[in-house]
Amino acid sequence: MRVVTFGELLLRLAPEGHLRFLQEPRLEATFGGGEANVGVSLAEFGAQSVYVTRLPENDIAQAAINQLRSFGVDTTKIARGGDRMGIYFLEKGAAQRPSKVIYDRAHSAIAQAKPGTFDWDAILDGADWFHFSGITPALSDDAAQITREALAAARAHGVRVSCDINYRANLWSREKAGAVMRPMMEYVDLFIGGAEDAEQELGITPPASEVLEDGLTHAGYESVAQQLIDTYGFQAVACTLRESISASDNNWGAMLYTGNQAYYSRKYAIHIVDRVGGGDSFSAGLIYALLDGRQPQDAVEFAVAAGVLKHSIEGDYNRITVQEAERLVRTGGNGRVSR
Amino acid sequence: MRVVTFGELLLRLAPEGHLRFLQEPRLEATFGGGEANVGVSLAEFGAQSVYVTRLPENDIAQAAINQLRSFGVDTTKIARGGDRMGIYFLEKGAAQRPSKVIYDRAHSAIAQAKPGTFDWDAILDGADWFHFSGITPALSDDAAQITREALAAARAHGVRVSCDINYRANLWSREKAGAVMRPMMEYVDLFIGGAEDAEQELGITPPASEVLEDGLTHAGYESVAQQLIDTYGFQAVACTLRESISASDNNWGAMLYTGNQAYYSRKYAIHIVDRVGGGDSFSAGLIYALLDGRQPQDAVEFAVAAGVLKHSIEGDYNRITVQEAERLVRTGGNGRVSR
Amino acid sequence: MRVVTFGELLLRLAPEGHLRFLQEPRLEATFGGGEANVGVSLAEFGAQSVYVTRLPENDIAQAAINQLRSFGVDTTKIARGGDRMGIYFLEKGAAQRPSKVIYDRAHSAIAQAKPGTFDWDAILDGADWFHFSGITPALSDDAAQITREALAAARAHGVRVSCDINYRANLWSREKAGAVMRPMMEYVDLFIGGAEDAEQELGITPPASEVLEDGLTHAGYESVAQQLIDTYGFQAVACTLRESISASDNNWGAMLYTGNQAYYSRKYAIHIVDRVGGGDSFSAGLIYALLDGRQPQDAVEFAVAAGVLKHSIEGDYNRITVQEAERLVRTGGNGRVSR
Amino acid sequence: MRVVTFGELLLRLAPEGHLRFLQEPRLEATFGGGEANVGVSLAEFGAQSVYVTRLPENDIAQAAINQLRSFGVDTTKIARGGDRMGIYFLEKGAAQRPSKVIYDRAHSAIAQAKPGTFDWDAILDGADWFHFSGITPALSDDAAQITREALAAARAHGVRVSCDINYRANLWSREKAGAVMRPMMEYVDLFIGGAEDAEQELGITPPASEVLEDGLTHAGYESVAQQLIDTYGFQAVACTLRESISASDNNWGAMLYTGNQAYYSRKYAIHIVDRVGGGDSFSAGLIYALLDGRQPQDAVEFAVAAGVLKHSIEGDYNRITVQEAERLVRTGGNGRVSR
Amino acid sequence: MRVVTFGELLLRLAPEGHLRFLQEPRLEATFGGGEANVGVSLAEFGAQSVYVTRLPENDIAQAAINQLRSFGVDTTKIARGGDRMGIYFLEKGAAQRPSKVIYDRAHSAIAQAKPGTFDWDAILDGADWFHFSGITPALSDDAAQITREALAAARAHGVRVSCDINYRANLWSREKAGAVMRPMMEYVDLFIGGAEDAEQELGITPPASEVLEDGLTHAGYESVAQQLIDTYGFQAVACTLRESISASDNNWGAMLYTGNQAYYSRKYAIHIVDRVGGGDSFSAGLIYALLDGRQPQDAVEFAVAAGVLKHSIEGDYNRITVQEAERLVRTGGNGRVSR
Amino acid sequence: MRVVTFGELLLRLAPEGHLRFLQEPRLEATFGGGEANVGVSLAEFGAQSVYVTRLPENDIAQAAINQLRSFGVDTTKIARGGDRMGIYFLEKGAAQRPSKVIYDRAHSAIAQAKPGTFDWDAILDGADWFHFSGITPALSDDAAQITREALAAARAHGVRVSCDINYRANLWSREKAGAVMRPMMEYVDLFIGGAEDAEQELGITPPASEVLEDGLTHAGYESVAQQLIDTYGFQAVACTLRESISASDNNWGAMLYTGNQAYYSRKYAIHIVDRVGGGDSFSAGLIYALLDGRQPQDAVEFAVAAGVLKHSIEGDYNRITVQEAERLVRTGGNGRVSR
Repeated sequence: MRVVTFGELLLRLAPEGHLRFLQEPRLEATFGGGEANVGVSLAEFGAQSVYVTRLPENDIAQAAINQLRSFGVDTTKIARGGDRMGIYFLEKGAAQRPSKVIYDRAHSAIAQAKPGTFDWDAILDGADWFHFSGITPALSDDAAQITREALAAARAHGVRVSCDINYRANLWSREKAGAVMRPMMEYVDLFIGGAEDAEQELGITPPASEVLEDGLTHAGYESVAQQLIDTYGFQAVACTLRESISASDNNWGAMLYTGNQAYYSRKYAIHIVDRVGGGDSFSAGLIYALLDGRQPQDAVEFAVAAGVLKHSIEGDYNRITVQEAERLVRTGGNGRVSR
Repeated sequence: MRVVTFGELLLRLAPEGHLRFLQEPRLEATFGGGEANVGVSLAEFGAQSVYVTRLPENDIAQAAINQLRSFGVDTTKIARGGDRMGIYFLEKGAAQRPSKVIYDRAHSAIAQAKPGTFDWDAILDGADWFHFSGITPALSDDAAQITREALAAARAHGVRVSCDINYRANLWSREKAGAVMRPMMEYVDLFIGGAEDAEQELGITPPASEVLEDGLTHAGYESVAQQLIDTYGFQAVACTLRESISASDNNWGAMLYTGNQAYYSRKYAIHIVDRVGGGDSFSAGLIYALLDGRQPQDAVEFAVAAGVLKHSIEGDYNRITVQEAERLVRTGGNGRVSR
Repeated sequence: MRVVTFGELLLRLAPEGHLRFLQEPRLEATFGGGEANVGVSLAEFGAQSVYVTRLPENDIAQAAINQLRSFGVDTTKIARGGDRMGIYFLEKGAAQRPSKVIYDRAHSAIAQAKPGTFDWDAILDGADWFHFSGITPALSDDAAQITREALAAARAHGVRVSCDINYRANLWSREKAGAVMRPMMEYVDLFIGGAEDAEQELGITPPASEVLEDGLTHAGYESVAQQLIDTYGFQAVACTLRESISASDNNWGAMLYTGNQAYYSRKYAIHIVDRVGGGDSFSAGLIYALLDGRQPQDAVEFAVAAGVLKHSIEGDYNRITVQEAERLVRTGGNGRVSR
Repeated sequence: MRVVTFGELLLRLAPEGHLRFLQEPRLEATFGGGEANVGVSLAEFGAQSVYVTRLPENDIAQAAINQLRSFGVDTTKIARGGDRMGIYFLEKGAAQRPSKVIYDRAHSAIAQAKPGTFDWDAILDGADWFHFSGITPALSDDAAQITREALAAARAHGVRVSCDINYRANLWSREKAGAVMRPMMEYVDLFIGGAEDAEQELGITPPASEVLEDGLTHAGYESVAQQLIDTYGFQAVACTLRESISASDNNWGAMLYTGNQAYYSRKYAIHIVDRVGGGDSFSAGLIYALLDGRQPQDAVEFAVAAGVLKHSIEGDYNRITVQEAERLVRTGGNGRVSR
Repeated sequence: MRVVTFGELLLRLAPEGHLRFLQEPRLEATFGGGEANVGVSLAEFGAQSVYVTRLPENDIAQAAINQLRSFGVDTTKIARGGDRMGIYFLEKGAAQRPSKVIYDRAHSAIAQAKPGTFDWDAILDGADWFHFSGITPALSDDAAQITREALAAARAHGVRVSCDINYRANLWSREKAGAVMRPMMEYVDLFIGGAEDAEQELGITPPASEVLEDGLTHAGYESVAQQLIDTYGFQAVACTLRESISASDNNWGAMLYTGNQAYYSRKYAIHIVDRVGGGDSFSAGLIYALLDGRQPQDAVEFAVAAGVLKHSIEGDYNRITVQEAERLVRTGGNGRVSR
Repeated sequence: MRVVTFGELLLRLAPEGHLRFLQEPRLEATFGGGEANVGVSLAEFGAQSVYVTRLPENDIAQAAINQLRSFGVDTTKIARGGDRMGIYFLEKGAAQRPSKVIYDRAHSAIAQAKPGTFDWDAILDGADWFHFSGITPALSDDAAQITREALAAARAHGVRVSCDINYRANLWSREKAGAVMRPMMEYVDLFIGGAEDAEQELGITPPASEVLEDGLTHAGYESVAQQLIDTYGFQAVACTLRESISASDNNWGAMLYTGNQAYYSRKYAIHIVDRVGGGDSFSAGLIYALLDGRQPQDAVEFAVAAGVLKHSIEGDYNRITVQEAERLVRTGGNGRVSR
């Protein structure tokens, strides 16, 4: 199984433990980014995982690539050039104090990449799946154009496509997002995104009767999913269902909707170590399970288990195996020691 | 808004994480002390915060001052001299193991300060508020006398006064505490303290019928507050209401009583990172909100939110802004990431 | 009170915090092993604690001995020789991710020890208690034979004997375990072990009607204990009762059964810092309380409190005093600060 | 003595010890920048030190300001705005491996500042000295224009001016540097810079006969200094004289030239802890000594001692007192313990 | 250029800085081993580097493989199986205290590998060079036999062969080493080893007149090299020349001898960060330079520069590029900052 | 060989590496004190080492005792009581920046001990040697009196006595020191101290002709030693000879003078890791060697080698064996790896 992911890779700088920004003069320096997170998960699951981005020629970016290689991700399609890689500063919340993110990603190598930078025919030839997110087209007009090049090539090579819509208000307006993303939706087979994203970027509104204070009813989610399928022709729609109790505790599950049929996963009560990348781990789990030919209920359970485990792991990347996710599906997570 | 706080600043030495004392040969070295904690909070809230103490002429004390300056606290009124600064060793508890404190504060520069050390007229001229605690007069007879000097000057300059009564049995006896503290109460506008302190130092007893196994009923707290107002002429009485489930989990709220009227805050379930300084953060929040002219209910909600957030932050000092406390009042702390 | 414990001491290598194995290039290097853990607890409780093992002549083993000495454990009976000490790698779980152990203990000095290595008559002369576990005889045939030598000497010197049965499937088969362990049972006064161990090594089966999905009913545990007493002549049987909610949260208590009478401790909800050694701390608490002449109910409460506190402490060793365990029995663990 | 410094403040990210970039996932996060380094030194020496820059409104920049405040630097003139603060990554060399710097400073708040941002009349009113470097005008045309505004105001207010020329080839070309910097030289009283900088930016060439393989002869340095004075009207020229033996060991001294007279300091053999900021510490020492009215020989000795001590201190900032520098001048650095 | 290296990979556990073993409970956990070190260097130099070994199926070994992948080393030929990977404990010396190594490598997966484990024809097909050391045949008779299989395949495929003789007295006797290693010498093109190794394993003795107290004269080294060539038919002999002044300071250079002609490198005075792997870095540099077609003098200078830089880098692996080594050859290591 | 040492044990708090005080909020917390340092060294050498002091009943003091036990020091004679243990803050120097010590030792348990606290007859019965320093009598009049009690008992039991004179100007005046120390000298067999101490406390002056800028000539040291022997009746006088080049580099050796005969050790050039405790390690080495019956030249070489090795070890305590010191005597410290 060969999966190509495309997006921006950022240097992540976070204080240790629950310290506030620069409370002590030490930062944990790791890497991450939605599509890279998906790519690493897939490599850990044993897939051939090809990650595509653009990074400058310096030691920081090289370290990012080296770490991807350590997971077995194919980094040979990464273009080198540009002035800098994006950075994000992360302060992990605790109890009633929320996590905090400061982005310093403008002018990054991938945002400055020009159309034609990547030979998508060569990259996607032989691939089974292509995954991207709504963040990449938001980086710059050129990045959006490169995404369109990738989607056209995916279609030409018969590659299935997933999109994690992921609206980021600090990158573009709702209007621009809609204008750019809607035409891309025709290429997408698996749509991943919450009701809020669907509304803000794709103009789908849930029935007012199904709107709760902090989310939608099941019927509301299903209505949104069905509308997405009706409007954009997706084969399936998936969304994670997070109940945020505090920065330390969340409930988490997901729905996979295949048209007229909704599959809900078990819901887990999670004591959070690091929630960044939880959604990406879910996406990776879903892509893996679907490519592996699993049934929808099994697929969503596997994907949620993968995402749940991510919350117990430091850093953006989900360092788990297929066996570990399956064990969680089986046991429900009672926490016995593995000897 | 200009607030003066006066008290002892200690070097705090704590093992990392949940280690026991010297389980590993590394100590986190920070600073704190009730009134300094209040002063730092106020500076973070944007107030002109003047902290008064006495510290020796050495690099450790200088580092303590430098850190206060980093928060924007005015340290120009700090007297230098004496042999040492007080130290406290803190071992943070977890689960069923309580936190543990070892004090090594005898013979400190402030305990050895002589009356007349501080020019209180100059210090309090133009100030809006003066805050002290029951710990300072307990340090030495001279420290008590200096406190009396400050209170007299506060009255002379029309400065409002708050006192966090904070009885410490390891510093003095109940009898001595009562003899020293009661005459100071006439200067106090806002009294902050629990029912236990009120009983031990000020001779106020709750109605027996309102005494529960682990605290008082609401009516009991209100009775104590009303008695305090009746006896000592306070304008308001505030106390935090902590339910200690374990060293890791507490429920926490507060009451502000303004004479015949009790205002109770929301109660928060807190997963604790570091509880030291929680009460001081509450005091600072209350002083800020009252000086800012907020209504009693708003004031106690703001103060409790500030105190709740402190529990998620390492060290004595509360590193939060007015906006962060207000956001918690607004959201109730659902833990969503701030991007 | 003089207690001798005998077993293997391992170097424990664990990533910091909740990191996965070698996610960062740093390992916490401490020491532990069931019987050493019991011995350290007993020394901390003020007992004369003699620990017997065999360790190679190198700096790593010497550091292990030095740490035992730091607790006041008598290490003068430890034999030196062999090529290596056993190692175990520990990854601490969190939330739904279980802890993970990798053993690298084969060919250790104690596994290669020859019968006659220890002068058990000299070691046990004057001792009040001898404690061993089912792990030691599993290490090698010679180790089993040495254990038999110890048991014979214990009987000769009138020393009471406890055994923590602790079946480890990665060390030997159920059949071999049964063949080796059963004859040793006649020497045992206090048997410590779960129903599963009793079944796998000693052929005791609970009534089918008392088997629950995740354990037994109280009646089931009592039936197993009574059968053990009937079959092997133990004076008492103890087992801890763990309900594993997740890797972060467990409920925990214990039963002490003295023949026809079961004593159940309070059950604690534990937020886990480090669960390794919890059972050993219980064993140590029980031995201490029984040697101290406490009544069964008091003994099991003390032992469970000791074990509960262990879960809040990093490392295998339980760094608590008798007073701390007794305080927990008294207060139930409300987490107030000890000043 | 009131000194104003103006320039860019950067976040400095460096691996611990002698590790290469991201060899371990931890970075020391401190702050620095030539003019801030000078400002911090001056504050440590007891001067009124005002630092002027522009920084964004985020927690990272606020931490930078807080640290300046901790040293007693006046930060009230710092403008807030823009998108980011500059970053530099530093890898400290050792033995034959040189230190390595990666800049990520483009698009910083100060580079994007507009003329008129700072009220130089207010800032420089009452000041005794203004210090800038050749790096600031290189950041952007606007930054150059702001520098010109500052210089005009300095002249108007009779403020003495020093410039550390510091040519950086990665910021601008030699031609542009010359065109921008030369007109600024007329405002400068104390010029600090090496012969290479003087040649590249200011067109001064040493006599060919005085050029050595790795620097100039004393006569060569003096010739350059005299030419600079003749051409630009400086009152004095200073340059540090570094002999780089390896990344671990340097010899270091300086010359102060006052027109026809050269003053050479003692030369020190330095075992390097952190060499970044050594030159800035020299500049600060020189400014301090000259404002303090010391004679040229004393001034250069003091300045070099300050710079030498910087090499023993981690981070950009020189954490030393006047007394420590003077003690080094007196003793020559024999390393006896100060008790 | 495609190079295959074969040997044992060990987990390296070292206290931080200059601490003695377990002085603090923290160990730096990295990986290394002579041939892996050579392989990593070659990958860093841009070669196709294939590393062959056998490692168990556990997370520790997987982490070792992942790190090799991060450097771009081809790990697809590594066999999985066996019970454990070897460990070595390293305490870094300082001043007059020497470094100390404790090996715990017996029973490792590679020592227990059986002949036929590796398909050497497939592995060496298309390779340009094969490198092994005298340590691997010393691990076990089977490991020696596997080495012989590799050498035969290398000859069959026309692959050039280098051997770093590296006699280890703790692994085998001088007699056994000679018996095993001598027949392997006929396959070797480039022999790397000191005079002592040559004497102990290969029976070559220097002329008595050329023996100094701490090594040989140049004529002595040349005599040994010529004898080696005469006896075993090597095309070239290389040896590093280390003068150990203390654990902190060494002088270091090398000789490459091509038959009748000796090429000596520059000698460097090194202030040591970590000397482990210095010789391996030299070997890698030499292999690279020779495969790159460089002349003997250039080759030995490049190889020594690579080895010198290794001494400034923590860990076994040499994290440098071709450009960095060449820069050192060019500059001699004056330690200027690279910006 | 049984040796008793008596003095104050302090908590030592030091920033990591070469950081200045509280540059980062982390302190290394270890223990030390002249006589404890001697006692630990002797225990490491295999002697029965009994350390006598007074420490409070708290967890910090208990940790200090536990660490002594880890080395095998007999701590059963330590009295418990008092309010605090002394603290010293240590900042390690580098290059031209000297190390810095801040003492916070007043009011310590040992300074407040009363005469009669220790049963010296029981403690010294069977001892071979008693060691004290001039610091202990300086702590308080009672501490001086306790020292006199010890000396009287030593004489009564025929125990040999050594004194490290160690004048500390911050503890007492030269006059008081002389008045207290001189009468104690009659009990001393081995006097350890520099010429400066001898002059300040004991009134011995070197011939003016033998005074150099930074010490004395050999003849000068010998003259002082002979005068000491003549005046006080010592059997031997020893002093270390330190040449302080910088905080990073010292030359170090020693003289042992036995009356008319001076024995000088080899002089070592030391690159310093941590110099605190170097003199104590020398004292311990000398006591060990003399008790072991070694000749003066061998004894001083052994003692100096022990002290030299200390300079390479973090912390006050010298973690070396007899074999390691002897190896250094043999090899001169060429720094080869011990495998």
